[in-house]
Amino acid sequence: MAASFVSYHVCYNTSYSIAKHIVSNLKLPKLDRSRNGSTSSVTKINAATVSSITQVTTDVHTKKEQTRQNIPTIKQFVDPHRQGLIIDNGVTYRQTVVIRSYEVGPDKTATLESILNLLQETALNHVWMSGLLGDGFGATHGMTRNNLMWVVSRMQLQMDHYPIWGEVLKLDTWVGASGKHGMRRDWELRSQATGVVFARGTSTWVMMNQKTRRLSKMPDEVKAEISPWFIDKQTITVDTLEKIKKLGDTAKYATSSLKPKRSDLDMNHHVNNVKYVGWLLEAMPDKFMDEHQLTDIILEYRRECGSSDIIQSLSEPDEDNRTSNESLSSLNGMQLKYTHILQTKGEVRNEEIVRARTTWRKKHSNMQFPMY
Amino acid sequence: MAASFVSYHVCYNTSYSIAKHIVSNLKLPKLDRSRNGSTSSVTKINAATVSSITQVTTDVHTKKEQTRQNIPTIKQFVDPHRQGLIIDNGVTYRQTVVIRSYEVGPDKTATLESILNLLQETALNHVWMSGLLGDGFGATHGMTRNNLMWVVSRMQLQMDHYPIWGEVLKLDTWVGASGKHGMRRDWELRSQATGVVFARGTSTWVMMNQKTRRLSKMPDEVKAEISPWFIDKQTITVDTLEKIKKLGDTAKYATSSLKPKRSDLDMNHHVNNVKYVGWLLEAMPDKFMDEHQLTDIILEYRRECGSSDIIQSLSEPDEDNRTSNESLSSLNGMQLKYTHILQTKGEVRNEEIVRARTTWRKKHSNMQFPMY
Repeated sequence: MAASFVSYHVCYNTSYSIAKHIVSNLKLPKLDRSRNGSTSSVTKINAATVSSITQVTTDVHTKKEQTRQNIPTIKQFVDPHRQGLIIDNGVTYRQTVVIRSYEVGPDKTATLESILNLLQETALNHVWMSGLLGDGFGATHGMTRNNLMWVVSRMQLQMDHYPIWGEVLKLDTWVGASGKHGMRRDWELRSQATGVVFARGTSTWVMMNQKTRRLSKMPDEVKAEISPWFIDKQTITVDTLEKIKKLGDTAKYATSSLKPKRSDLDMNHHVNNVKYVGWLLEAMPDKFMDEHQLTDIILEYRRECGSSDIIQSLSEPDEDNRTSNESLSSLNGMQLKYTHILQTKGEVRNEEIVRARTTWRKKHSNMQFPMY
Repeated sequence: MAASFVSYHVCYNTSYSIAKHIVSNLKLPKLDRSRNGSTSSVTKINAATVSSITQVTTDVHTKKEQTRQNIPTIKQFVDPHRQGLIIDNGVTYRQTVVIRSYEVGPDKTATLESILNLLQETALNHVWMSGLLGDGFGATHGMTRNNLMWVVSRMQLQMDHYPIWGEVLKLDTWVGASGKHGMRRDWELRSQATGVVFARGTSTWVMMNQKTRRLSKMPDEVKAEISPWFIDKQTITVDTLEKIKKLGDTAKYATSSLKPKRSDLDMNHHVNNVKYVGWLLEAMPDKFMDEHQLTDIILEYRRECGSSDIIQSLSEPDEDNRTSNESLSSLNGMQLKYTHILQTKGEVRNEEIVRARTTWRKKHSNMQFPMY
């Protein structure tokens, strides 16, 4: 446990402009070749796995009885326990999910954090079903051999309708290329009963060397693993990326007492990025949150942080929200927009963790849930 | 949303000795008869439901298409989406669960909070399957008619083994009588692959009037609904209840900056009791938590609290833990015991929320998960 204990207190300076790097696909840091060179013996051990990824079977469980996790080593098409299927010519993962009692807030609708957790879960189960999952948090065998991990640089989620406690949903996820060295992952959340789309998500991921903490190009062996899964389909079309402005300390709303808890750390020994969203929303006024529903969030991740940091969360409504009369404008169907930032308060300078833009609409006036 | 907004900021003084009341089954507050008397017209509307609870069918979905939740009105034996079954002569609920990526900590084992969430989820799904679920957080139709809700007074959880990410488990839950006016709910968590029991839980529940905030006797119509589900089987036999001593402000470990977040509220508009456990453990030293695993927790709930309270969490090891040499004693297989308290810091006096006792053992020295 020594390793985990050390990383627990370290802030990882990943990049101050991950998103820009990915979008322009320029100036990625040099691949750490000494690290790659040293892993050739490990490569041999798993070479059979890499070559078998397209082999189809629904029964490999007997091979893996010796492990409790039972991670498949070849592609699966059905997982009855996870209620997962591989569909759409063998590339999209679909999971049936039921909204659980602890995933909803006081109004019985799923919280944004619950939705983001389900997106993460299906993304990992997609890799799980692929037979590519190595010894990491969604890392493939090839990534494990190269000491690489996934880091998210950008995420956008559009929430048209919020699922309610007990509602049955279908959550689809698939991947595509993002430039030469990144990956796009999309999601669509639908009502099982009606097929109506409740939410659409898209995200951009890059690889980071776990030891040097630098971004990495995608090695050819990883490209060989994952590119057969890439499709062009995009659930949200982003023509030009809106750059999120940096909020200053004079932002209208601020919460400064946020401190990561031990239970906020995930398998990568970092504060999980879903927790950041909860902190962003903590800086919103209670009255506004009671009366409004988030319909769109864009997150630009800048830097990971460890559990010893004290986090400040700032929010500011757009000027054209007519803040003096928010209730009226939102009643009239006008969308309200906010800019957000999470940062650590340093002695010399503040360090940005994530910037965000959110869009809100007025909540339904009663909680008789409409049919979708 | 007005009602939720008010309750959001109110601390509910339920009882300073709920557990004692239940165990001795004495001196429960008077039933609010004016409330019961006023609900006779509502009673008639749902009378058919009460009489049909033992009717068996697996297909009532067509009747409920108009609702998104699709809560059954008659008993179900199978729920394919929740992966739930009613077994053991029709009284025990069994759900297959897979430990999700966000339910585990950095060591890839499920967190205590995740386990407690799954216990809550299966308890509610048990009521869901029974056809008894009314318009509340596990409340039956009869409880809804009487403005009653469940409150937990005591919970004990024994963790023999912690499940790991991706592990498939069977979680059983059933209920029994606890005195004349209370209910006991037990759980057993097993490995699906081997059948080995990982955890056992038991809890005691009483009814509270939602409007008067006083404890209530169990009305006869509620007894008629739930007593057909009662069995005597107990997963943990408690001969004599150990009384948990009250920790003073001089306790060895303390964390004072705990503040409920908006997202900590559940469907009852309270801070969910599972969150309390997270706060209790926040006051434990990091090094101890890294090296030890909780094997037993007993919680005595005293009082609910709202989101405007600032919470203090205190912990103290037992004297005979030989605190000067904890590592040695725990390496020798000795169990370490702690006493805990969560309280609000008031200007005049502190208000107890929960007392707890925990037992710990040394963690396995490496993270190669053993087979169970």
